[in-house]
Amino acid sequence: MIQVAINGYGTIGKRVADAVREQPDMEVRGVAKTRPNFESETAVDKGFPLYAAVEERADQFEEAGLEIAGPVEDLVDAADVVVDATPSGIGAENKSMYEEYDTPALYQGGEDADLVDTSFNARSNFEDATGADHVRVVSCNTTGLSRVIAPLREAYGVEKVRATLVRRGGDPGQTSRGPINDILPNPVTIPSHHGPDVETIFDDLDIDTLGMKVPATLMHMHSLNVTLEEEVDAAEVRDLFAEESRLFQIPERMDIDGSGKLKEYALDAGRPRGDVWENCIWEESVSTVGNDLYLFQGIHQESDVVPENVDAIRAVLGEADAEESIQTTDETMGIGL
Amino acid sequence: MIQVAINGYGTIGKRVADAVREQPDMEVRGVAKTRPNFESETAVDKGFPLYAAVEERADQFEEAGLEIAGPVEDLVDAADVVVDATPSGIGAENKSMYEEYDTPALYQGGEDADLVDTSFNARSNFEDATGADHVRVVSCNTTGLSRVIAPLREAYGVEKVRATLVRRGGDPGQTSRGPINDILPNPVTIPSHHGPDVETIFDDLDIDTLGMKVPATLMHMHSLNVTLEEEVDAAEVRDLFAEESRLFQIPERMDIDGSGKLKEYALDAGRPRGDVWENCIWEESVSTVGNDLYLFQGIHQESDVVPENVDAIRAVLGEADAEESIQTTDETMGIGL
Amino acid sequence: MIQVAINGYGTIGKRVADAVREQPDMEVRGVAKTRPNFESETAVDKGFPLYAAVEERADQFEEAGLEIAGPVEDLVDAADVVVDATPSGIGAENKSMYEEYDTPALYQGGEDADLVDTSFNARSNFEDATGADHVRVVSCNTTGLSRVIAPLREAYGVEKVRATLVRRGGDPGQTSRGPINDILPNPVTIPSHHGPDVETIFDDLDIDTLGMKVPATLMHMHSLNVTLEEEVDAAEVRDLFAEESRLFQIPERMDIDGSGKLKEYALDAGRPRGDVWENCIWEESVSTVGNDLYLFQGIHQESDVVPENVDAIRAVLGEADAEESIQTTDETMGIGL
Amino acid sequence: MIQVAINGYGTIGKRVADAVREQPDMEVRGVAKTRPNFESETAVDKGFPLYAAVEERADQFEEAGLEIAGPVEDLVDAADVVVDATPSGIGAENKSMYEEYDTPALYQGGEDADLVDTSFNARSNFEDATGADHVRVVSCNTTGLSRVIAPLREAYGVEKVRATLVRRGGDPGQTSRGPINDILPNPVTIPSHHGPDVETIFDDLDIDTLGMKVPATLMHMHSLNVTLEEEVDAAEVRDLFAEESRLFQIPERMDIDGSGKLKEYALDAGRPRGDVWENCIWEESVSTVGNDLYLFQGIHQESDVVPENVDAIRAVLGEADAEESIQTTDETMGIGL
Repeated sequence: MIQVAINGYGTIGKRVADAVREQPDMEVRGVAKTRPNFESETAVDKGFPLYAAVEERADQFEEAGLEIAGPVEDLVDAADVVVDATPSGIGAENKSMYEEYDTPALYQGGEDADLVDTSFNARSNFEDATGADHVRVVSCNTTGLSRVIAPLREAYGVEKVRATLVRRGGDPGQTSRGPINDILPNPVTIPSHHGPDVETIFDDLDIDTLGMKVPATLMHMHSLNVTLEEEVDAAEVRDLFAEESRLFQIPERMDIDGSGKLKEYALDAGRPRGDVWENCIWEESVSTVGNDLYLFQGIHQESDVVPENVDAIRAVLGEADAEESIQTTDETMGIGL
Repeated sequence: MIQVAINGYGTIGKRVADAVREQPDMEVRGVAKTRPNFESETAVDKGFPLYAAVEERADQFEEAGLEIAGPVEDLVDAADVVVDATPSGIGAENKSMYEEYDTPALYQGGEDADLVDTSFNARSNFEDATGADHVRVVSCNTTGLSRVIAPLREAYGVEKVRATLVRRGGDPGQTSRGPINDILPNPVTIPSHHGPDVETIFDDLDIDTLGMKVPATLMHMHSLNVTLEEEVDAAEVRDLFAEESRLFQIPERMDIDGSGKLKEYALDAGRPRGDVWENCIWEESVSTVGNDLYLFQGIHQESDVVPENVDAIRAVLGEADAEESIQTTDETMGIGL
Repeated sequence: MIQVAINGYGTIGKRVADAVREQPDMEVRGVAKTRPNFESETAVDKGFPLYAAVEERADQFEEAGLEIAGPVEDLVDAADVVVDATPSGIGAENKSMYEEYDTPALYQGGEDADLVDTSFNARSNFEDATGADHVRVVSCNTTGLSRVIAPLREAYGVEKVRATLVRRGGDPGQTSRGPINDILPNPVTIPSHHGPDVETIFDDLDIDTLGMKVPATLMHMHSLNVTLEEEVDAAEVRDLFAEESRLFQIPERMDIDGSGKLKEYALDAGRPRGDVWENCIWEESVSTVGNDLYLFQGIHQESDVVPENVDAIRAVLGEADAEESIQTTDETMGIGL
Repeated sequence: MIQVAINGYGTIGKRVADAVREQPDMEVRGVAKTRPNFESETAVDKGFPLYAAVEERADQFEEAGLEIAGPVEDLVDAADVVVDATPSGIGAENKSMYEEYDTPALYQGGEDADLVDTSFNARSNFEDATGADHVRVVSCNTTGLSRVIAPLREAYGVEKVRATLVRRGGDPGQTSRGPINDILPNPVTIPSHHGPDVETIFDDLDIDTLGMKVPATLMHMHSLNVTLEEEVDAAEVRDLFAEESRLFQIPERMDIDGSGKLKEYALDAGRPRGDVWENCIWEESVSTVGNDLYLFQGIHQESDVVPENVDAIRAVLGEADAEESIQTTDETMGIGL
């Protein structure tokens, strides 16, 4: 059993912990957190050994009635691999600790690409991570773009990608984030950093991205244009996407007009936390005009990277190939709406 | 086994169906819906027999690949009790159908109080519903107010209640509802209809309510003032509330500042759909100034009436007394955060 | 003096009335409204003769203490031209009345293109409207796209336009419109109707548009890609845009990150109602990658068509050519931030 | 002519500058700002001498092409009075500078009450400020409460005030503030600090306040309960309020349902920046139940303190009594919708 440490038990970390626990070949060795709150309470309720990410604050947990198993260093030392799910920039600070204990580490998309040996998307470049010490699971948006681009490249060739990423301002619990009533070009400069980030997965891809930020919390929304190398019928593209386990095409008959109903469907279907691990492509939106393919897709920023983290664990340790790992992850998590 | 029909499979109906299925003494005889969408798909996936609420549209379900068990009349005829969870005003239109098949019916809070024999809140007036043919489970806001007022009346006596109800503009999936960026006095006239509605539960209560509508989707928020008949220490009130299974006092240590983190906690804790069936009272907010008690409570508009509907079924059929029913409902649903 | 009737005194109508009053060659003959509210009060305060758009409701105005000059037919009869600023679809119903009184009419962008002789954008096709009886001033979004495309076509040639229109859900006073917390692909199908609408101005243009709707009220935001027929430096494009009076390039030094600060700047600058009649292009965003031009622009849905309506009046009556009219309109209104 | 310095040229400062310029007995000696942005550009356009609030950053203004008249100390030295309109807490830091130059200073409501000799509301305690060196103009919410309470105390006596303040999350241009989709009890503890703040104006008042924060930007909304010392008819209270120049009672016939339409009315009426300096009380909402008075009022957080700052200048310098000053301020600004 692979012993997995999870450093950071917030939006991503807690989801990765639950997903890892579902895997037949993995065990959650423990989770680390900086301070007590409702999340640390559920960590304890779920039986995850809780470590203090900041040793000086360990007594805060005790005051809150939560037992601490030890400092995060103990956890890193004991694990076969660590998933760093700390806020952007903290992962870079933690790198030396992981090196000190000689524990391979996965980082999230908020870290710089040059912090690591390779960036990772299970569908696109699984093998690049084999044996690496430091791997970055790309961000929710980059993951969402990579999953769509990979099959299009293989099937038709991609001449150019242009994408407008309309991003949610904050997650549902992030009450200090805005905007309240605005549509922000963000970043104002074009192309945004998202395009180069996708190029860490496909280094020869021609892609320009534009970012915005809006007052919504549930999902990001991509307006995607892919100029293919040949003219293809939209129906054919839909069939291609239907083969991909991590692409969900929302059928018209479901009458889902946005991320609110989409999340409600996920909740009704019994998904834990209403998570939508798949890209959600509006089937009606998949259209072609000459070589140009267009579509809308919703990306659940809180969860789409979770199965990718699970696969990256196997990739780094060389425990499975892409197909085996993705299949195991999909089956255990219940991916495929 | 009590055979329960659920007419209307939207926000409330689907939750009541799931809750009824958990009861040891009940069975979902079937659910009725007007048109196919993502909700009817999950109804079928869950194995609930699906009836057509509007006979002429039955073929729409077939076109969507969903098998229909028959018209809603068949369902009403076959059931021991029907829970009407249709939109406001439709319940009144359905009343004659329920009478025709001699099936006792529960309605939701959107219907007028004079449509029914009695209005219902399990904690406050369970027995009034025994043997009634038409019972109204009061609205989410009235349920939330009643649950708090009942123990206060019993313990200290209530001189007057003043409440400002800051209501969410729409549910997460209701994308056509606003406002987007406003705070609306709603209704503009004072007192609002909510006060008289609480008086359908406590007929001698002195209560004035004021309503607003704001751009939020997760929960309503009540600013509550209760002038008690005696001066009481806040700590004592917290102890009183701690005895109530459907009041959850959010402890300060959880660091929950609003409905976003509250719902996230519910999701983390594994609650189906992230539902919060309990009133959520911020423990720190429970304060007294002389005879005046103040507090903030969040009310989950989509779910707090669900256990009340379950209890109302037993009340109408005389199958249990309040204590037995509430205990069974709480245990099977997992109420008590 | 051109006698101008304005039928519909809401968001657009009241602004057109104020702009017409500023013109040296025009006079507001009167404005028509369906029912009294705060807008009819300010119409009277401003001295605009007020006509009843629905004769049966004329007494509602009197009850509100507002004097009515007569039925809308009298106004149409007395005017040289009527600007129909009624809600989408009502313009079509009014057409026969305008024909009956032989008064040339301007309609807004919510009407179908085939209702009229020609669609209109002052910068792009002013002369097409000369002598026409029925002219449609294209919508705020189409106006905004046309103003940018026209100079690009003339200077470099345009191979293809791809635009994502992230639209505000409703205007600041439209409290019943949503969404509250969602990003809606809207319409879900691609391309959206906006592209064909731009083609009513440039009939040989290759343009694909995608629409979204978000919870914001202040402005629309366009993510625009124009594939030019040649490779151009971004600085050159900025110089080109600087020549256009109805394009405002927001300089970086102003530190304006979105529509909130932009409107605040307009208010600080003394603009009536804080209106921003110009396209607002973030100067930093104007970028080129090969033949591809990218930019972000904010479009003030309440006001950018106002100068266009003024110009269309002159175009229809043949009172000026494009250059003269635009210059007069710009100077009197104070266009050019 | 009173020479007025304005330190801080943001939301409040720029409005005070414009209002001061309208006064027959005052002159804007200059305004100070920390860094260049769109506001400093309009300051220069309006002809206000611009001083650098932070000397080291003076060259940033020059880079932006804006001429600086000198450091803020020069401005303070040259003025008869300084209005400190800097962000909360900065006023306290500036106090020693004002003392050094022996210039009387007005601070805004974000500063602590004990920083100053007296807190100020023109209607309620104008005379307390005469000759004071340091005066605090109370916050927008406290100003709004004081204006309503003062006449009620005088006419009927006030036994107790209970108010729920539903506050906008941020101003229209404050894009980094949230919440996006939440209703926050804020502060969670009760009573909130607003009640004690009103007591700096009426020291013997019994008042409990509760605060919330919601995703809106236009205005705060108060749900107000005042227990009077006698039973009064609502019509009588409306007549009382009609006598107050800074209370605007929104008539039902205007069909204004919230702050969006209210601001639109102000813009239509030609108010600079659409400012609403008056409390906006929904006339229909003014209701009495026994001794209890209830009402809803909207408070424009950006502007209601502006006339109060103007009056405070005269109060401090002993240049007029309350009645004279309020009348002059009202007439010059155009107060009274």
